[in-house]
Amino acid sequence: MTTETLPILAILGGTGDLGTGLARRWAQAGYQVLIGSRTQEKAEAAVADLREVMAERGVGEISVQAMENLAAAQAADIVAITVPFSHQASTLELVKPALQGKILIDVTVPLVPPKVARVQLPEGGSAGQIAQDLLGEEVAVVSAFQNVAAAHLQEGSGLDCDVLVCGNKKVAREQVITLIEAAGMRGFHAGMINNAAAAEALTSVLIVINKQYSCHAGIRITGLDHD
Amino acid sequence: MTTETLPILAILGGTGDLGTGLARRWAQAGYQVLIGSRTQEKAEAAVADLREVMAERGVGEISVQAMENLAAAQAADIVAITVPFSHQASTLELVKPALQGKILIDVTVPLVPPKVARVQLPEGGSAGQIAQDLLGEEVAVVSAFQNVAAAHLQEGSGLDCDVLVCGNKKVAREQVITLIEAAGMRGFHAGMINNAAAAEALTSVLIVINKQYSCHAGIRITGLDHD
Repeated sequence: MTTETLPILAILGGTGDLGTGLARRWAQAGYQVLIGSRTQEKAEAAVADLREVMAERGVGEISVQAMENLAAAQAADIVAITVPFSHQASTLELVKPALQGKILIDVTVPLVPPKVARVQLPEGGSAGQIAQDLLGEEVAVVSAFQNVAAAHLQEGSGLDCDVLVCGNKKVAREQVITLIEAAGMRGFHAGMINNAAAAEALTSVLIVINKQYSCHAGIRITGLDHD
Repeated sequence: MTTETLPILAILGGTGDLGTGLARRWAQAGYQVLIGSRTQEKAEAAVADLREVMAERGVGEISVQAMENLAAAQAADIVAITVPFSHQASTLELVKPALQGKILIDVTVPLVPPKVARVQLPEGGSAGQIAQDLLGEEVAVVSAFQNVAAAHLQEGSGLDCDVLVCGNKKVAREQVITLIEAAGMRGFHAGMINNAAAAEALTSVLIVINKQYSCHAGIRITGLDHD
């Protein structure tokens, strides 16, 4: 991969709301996107939907492909996982050999249904930390996108939401921030991977606010001017 | 206390940066504020500073008084605690009898020096939950202000920062939101007291961002429009 070439992106669980939203934004930004799913059939359906939405938006050529999760992880340079918390560990176990030396963008929020409006962080402290522990140090786990509403990601317009980016390797966080910017948002270095707890817990708070205001809330970082 | 009368506010640890900031804003908004400290002397010094700043700002009559923490808690209708995490439990044990039937605004952030940029939530899940467990159900603990920079609170101007408000009693949360608005900010119902973990964890993330940008960052909730 030269500096001129964009990395190939895989989205595991790319048929869900969040995965669909990321796929739309990255495909539209010119990235080659591999939609991963547990079955080839579901991945194909998601790709067909994606092509339809892009055509409606008047977006020309896009580069997307349907694959099973493991094949997608093998073929990609950077892999995002957007599956429910209950499927995070099993999905990562499946693709672990394919992730060595790569960046894994963990979008998992450790919600415990039915009380999703209640912060219930896992024993490992955060889903991000669980992913890093499971995958080992040869995989750079970067936690991101926990506070972006899927509904807004799926839209074609601007996004009034910032992304907190946690991970143990700064270079990896920076690559993810580039992808966040390509998707139309601002990304912020938010510390080591265990700080993912903050973004993951915040999702339940945003669910509380969504219920009150019938909205899809997000956050912005303020006060960045020197003072 | 009738509906026309403003509640009397105590700020335990009111000589610190955050307590000073809250005192300035509430005193300026016309509330009677009791500055609590471990010693009468330190409280008196803080009150003298407060009067000086108010005079500089051209604020007329203000109602502030210096007291030791227990006396301040006894005399107030609503009590805020703004002490370091390491002093939270001992301070609450001291004033517990004076808090029965009242609202306790817990501003504690469970930072563990020296690694304050690292999320390290306590075993009880959050400082807010620890306070509620310690004080019992006759005290309405409401967690707030964890993500507001003291430097901005101390200023006289507007604040570009929202406040997440957690607590088990909605009526108590609403009274705290009124106080947040009096201080120039927006407050949001953010769920039960254990959701305080989200705001408390977020403080370490903001510390990371502050270091990068040499700023005093905060957050705003976005996406509140119905869609």
